[in-house]
Amino acid sequence: MAQRATLNSVAEAAAVSRQTVSNVINSPEVVSPETRERVLEAIERLGYRPHTAARQLRTTRSQIIGLRIAPVGNGVSGVVLDQFLHSLTATAEEYDHRIMLFTAADDESETRAYADLIASVGVDAFVLTHTHHDDLRTRWLRERELPFVTFGRPWGAEQDHPWVDVDGARGTRLATDHLVRQGHRRIAFVGWPEGSETGDDRRAGWSAGLAEAGIPERREAAVFDGVEGGRSAAARLLDEPLAPTAFVCASDSLALGVVGELRDRGLRLGADASVIGFDDTPTAAVLGLSSVAQPIAEVAAECVRQLRVMLRGEPGPASALLPPRLVLRRT
Amino acid sequence: MAQRATLNSVAEAAAVSRQTVSNVINSPEVVSPETRERVLEAIERLGYRPHTAARQLRTTRSQIIGLRIAPVGNGVSGVVLDQFLHSLTATAEEYDHRIMLFTAADDESETRAYADLIASVGVDAFVLTHTHHDDLRTRWLRERELPFVTFGRPWGAEQDHPWVDVDGARGTRLATDHLVRQGHRRIAFVGWPEGSETGDDRRAGWSAGLAEAGIPERREAAVFDGVEGGRSAAARLLDEPLAPTAFVCASDSLALGVVGELRDRGLRLGADASVIGFDDTPTAAVLGLSSVAQPIAEVAAECVRQLRVMLRGEPGPASALLPPRLVLRRT
Repeated sequence: MAQRATLNSVAEAAAVSRQTVSNVINSPEVVSPETRERVLEAIERLGYRPHTAARQLRTTRSQIIGLRIAPVGNGVSGVVLDQFLHSLTATAEEYDHRIMLFTAADDESETRAYADLIASVGVDAFVLTHTHHDDLRTRWLRERELPFVTFGRPWGAEQDHPWVDVDGARGTRLATDHLVRQGHRRIAFVGWPEGSETGDDRRAGWSAGLAEAGIPERREAAVFDGVEGGRSAAARLLDEPLAPTAFVCASDSLALGVVGELRDRGLRLGADASVIGFDDTPTAAVLGLSSVAQPIAEVAAECVRQLRVMLRGEPGPASALLPPRLVLRRT
Repeated sequence: MAQRATLNSVAEAAAVSRQTVSNVINSPEVVSPETRERVLEAIERLGYRPHTAARQLRTTRSQIIGLRIAPVGNGVSGVVLDQFLHSLTATAEEYDHRIMLFTAADDESETRAYADLIASVGVDAFVLTHTHHDDLRTRWLRERELPFVTFGRPWGAEQDHPWVDVDGARGTRLATDHLVRQGHRRIAFVGWPEGSETGDDRRAGWSAGLAEAGIPERREAAVFDGVEGGRSAAARLLDEPLAPTAFVCASDSLALGVVGELRDRGLRLGADASVIGFDDTPTAAVLGLSSVAQPIAEVAAECVRQLRVMLRGEPGPASALLPPRLVLRRT
C-alpha cells in the first residue's frame, strides 16, 4: 500500500533537501527554476498536499507549541520576553502542552521554520511575538488555517486573528497622570523613532495624558533603544530653555540613560526631576526606577487559553488587551 | 499482531494515569500499594520494558533536547541561564536539534518529567543545569543510559558523566589578582552560605589569590543571594576596624548591594573602594560594575558538541572546564 507522501519522501524523490521542498512550497522565488520544476513534479507524482498535511496535525495533537526566540539575549529589555517564555512554559505545561524553541533571522525565515517544525516535529500551534503592520507570518499561518496566537496586536485592519497584548498607551497614560498629580507641567517623552507600532502606542498615552491635563507642549526625543540613546535624548531635552522636570520613557533602557544624565548634572532624582521607565526590569528594581509593569504571567495564561480554544475547534477565541500597572519607586 | 507496549497502553490497562505508571517505575514510594500492584501486573502482562523503550529512542532520533527552566524568571542573576537558553537553541538548531522546555518543582519531579518527555514526545537527550553533590537526576539518567550533558560539574567523585562548566575559581582569582595589582590589601569576599558548590568554588579562587599575594586575612561575609544581602554584608564588613577597600562578590546581585552601601556611605567607587561582581549581567553593564563574564555561548556550543558525540554513539565525550574573563568597568 502506498504510504502518505511527506516532506521527506518528496525531498528524496526529487533528490533535494527537505528545506528546498519547503522553499518551493513557501518561497518559490529563492529556488532555481530547474530545481523548482523537479520538486513540483515530485509533489504532483507523489500526491503530496502540504496544507492538508498541516491541517491533519490537529487531529494528531503533538501538544507542542512553537515559539521563536532571539539567537542571543538582548540586554536590559529582552528580559521581558524571557519572563514571557518562563510563564508560557509553566502555563502550557498545566494543560500538558510543551514549548519548543526555534530561531529565525527574519519573518520570512520564521515562516520557513513553521513549515519545517510542522513537517519534522508535528508542532500543533505557534505563539508569535513582535507583531507589526503587514505581518507576513500571520498571513502565512492564516492561509494554512494553522492555530496560533500573537503576543502583540495585529496593528493593521486587515489582520483578523487571535491576539493578546498589553495596553501600552494606558501604561504611559498612568505614568503621565501620576507626574501631573505630582505637580509636573513640563513632562517630556523619550521614545523610539516613529513607525514602531509599540513605540507610537506608548507615545499616544503620554500625549493623551498631557491633553487631559490641558498641557499644550509636546517635548520629546526619538532615539534608538538603549542606555546611550536615553542619555543623549535627555541631554538634548535638558539643554532646551524651560527644560523638562519629568520624563516618561518607552523602555527601562531609555529611562536608565535619562537617570544617568540627570545624575551627571547633579539633579536629585525624585526631587528635582522624575523619571518613569517601561517594562519593570530587574535593573529598574535594583536602581529604584519607577516603571510600567506588563502583566506577563497573565499574557502567557491568556495565550495558552486562546490556543486551547482553537485546538479544541471551538468558536473563535476573543482577543485580549490587558492593563499594565505603574510600579512607583524612588525616581 | 500485538503492538509494542507503551506507557499509554499500560496506563489504560491498569486504569490509571500515565503519570502514575511513570511513578510506579521511578518513584514507587509515592504510589499506594494497591495501585502499585495493579500497575506492576499490567507492566508484566503487556511486557512493557521502560528502560528498553527509552534506549530504542536513540535509533528513532527525534532530534529533541529537553531542558528544565524555572517557572518564573528570577531577577538579576537568572539572566545567565536565559542567555544560555538562547545560545543553546541557536547552536542546537545548526545541527537540526530543537530545544523543548519543561518545568519541575524539584530534582525528583525533574526525573519524572524526563520519563514523561521520553514517553510522550520522544525526547532524545537532556541538558541539565544546577548540578550539585549527590545529584539524583544524573544518577537516574545514567542508570537508564540516556544521553545527557550538564552545564555544571558533577561536584562529587562518584558521578562520572559528560559536563561543561565555567571555572568560577579562576574568575574570582582574576578579580582578586586585579585588585592586588591595583594596590588593594584588604580585599573582602561577599558570597553565599557554605555548602553551595558554585559559591565555595568562587570563594576558593579569591582565597588562593590572597595566598599568592601573601595576604593572610580572610574577611568575608556569607549571605543569601540578592541586592539586600550584598548591602547588609557590606555594612557589616565596613563597620569592622580596618574595613576592606575592595570586594570580590559571588554574583552581580551581591555586588550591586555592596555598591549601594558604599554610595550611601559617601565612598567613591573606583577611588575609595573597588567592587567586582560575577556574571556580567546587563544590570552590571548599565551601572558600570566590573564583573566576571562566563563564556555562555561557548558553554552552549560545547554542550551541543558533547550531545552529538553521544547521540552518534562515539567514544565518551571529554568534559570541558571553560575559562571566564574579567570585564573591567568604573567600579
